[in-house]
Amino acid sequence: MDKRLFITFEGPDGSGKTTIIKMVAKYLKNNNIDFVLTREPGGSLIAEQIRNIILNPNNLELSSTTEALLYAASRAQHFNEVIEPALMNNKLVLCDRFIDSSLAYQGVARGLGIDEVMEINRFAIKDVLPDLTIFFDLDPIIGLNRINNSEFREINRLDLEEKAFHYQVYEGYLKIVKMYQKRFKVVDAHKPIEEVYNNVINIIMEQLNR
Amino acid sequence: MDKRLFITFEGPDGSGKTTIIKMVAKYLKNNNIDFVLTREPGGSLIAEQIRNIILNPNNLELSSTTEALLYAASRAQHFNEVIEPALMNNKLVLCDRFIDSSLAYQGVARGLGIDEVMEINRFAIKDVLPDLTIFFDLDPIIGLNRINNSEFREINRLDLEEKAFHYQVYEGYLKIVKMYQKRFKVVDAHKPIEEVYNNVINIIMEQLNR
Repeated sequence: MDKRLFITFEGPDGSGKTTIIKMVAKYLKNNNIDFVLTREPGGSLIAEQIRNIILNPNNLELSSTTEALLYAASRAQHFNEVIEPALMNNKLVLCDRFIDSSLAYQGVARGLGIDEVMEINRFAIKDVLPDLTIFFDLDPIIGLNRINNSEFREINRLDLEEKAFHYQVYEGYLKIVKMYQKRFKVVDAHKPIEEVYNNVINIIMEQLNR
Repeated sequence: MDKRLFITFEGPDGSGKTTIIKMVAKYLKNNNIDFVLTREPGGSLIAEQIRNIILNPNNLELSSTTEALLYAASRAQHFNEVIEPALMNNKLVLCDRFIDSSLAYQGVARGLGIDEVMEINRFAIKDVLPDLTIFFDLDPIIGLNRINNSEFREINRLDLEEKAFHYQVYEGYLKIVKMYQKRFKVVDAHKPIEEVYNNVINIIMEQLNR
């Protein structure tokens, strides 16, 4: 089965996105559904060089506008090298975080404005928005606590931001879900992981069988 | 004398911009006119890190949209760290290349569109356009020959582009000068350097004495 479909996964850190995506990938493989799984910066060496500037804890003077433009640049390169070619080949593409992360983090939490950040990102991705975006709805402080109890993640610059920032990101997400209702599906990520997984699989299979 | 004024210098490589700007700086100093002289990436360490990605000859897969966003990001950081604070202090700011270079190189020569590249750059510089832009009008192939006869410049990725590209940049500049007639002044850079210098000084002093 080949179907051109672009699905993105969004939500606060610690919402279980990445774990669930891995489970989804296993399910698709077992059911012989071809797909491309990626995440920003997605194996693009140039996109990775760009992200290194953003995440470098020494770059304290990085301005919000610069940060937003760097995320858009990293996304443009990843889109060009990975996502666009896969969609051109009628693949199902799953991407862990995409444009809505920038709208929530830079547009709302950094106060740059959703429309302004959308503008530079539309430029980056040549107006190719996801067909479906699954939002993992979780109280961001619960997410942060989950992360802090794990030893597997390095602390980066964004983790040092205070909790208020994470609530702003979360409220940004809720705003964006409302603005783009048509492409968003929301799953309650407070629930047990098996239940979240089943919800996500149902949403994806429904979209695939349309 | 303190006057908030933002002047940029544009033109093909080898048009003598940088040499003339140095002569202008000397003149201003001799006449006790305070100023800030800068060029992109303008001593901003972050902006420089961004430029290193653009100019790295190994980054052959760099897409045009990524390149345009990286130039905008570098500009945003330079603007935030250097230009905006100087203008806030009512300084005269002279900048060697600015937004119009992106409009000509990325907007026209790379075919991304002047309006689209203007959009991401307006975001980068918070809508603060130069008060005056001096365009050094020169046949770009004459400029290239001037550069190739000099030993002082390193060859970077852009120098490897074919001559057609440089003509496209030049025609882009002519288009932009027409679009933004109010802030542009054109000097004929084919003329002897002393004559070009005198023209530039007259233009700047007229603007300063307004």
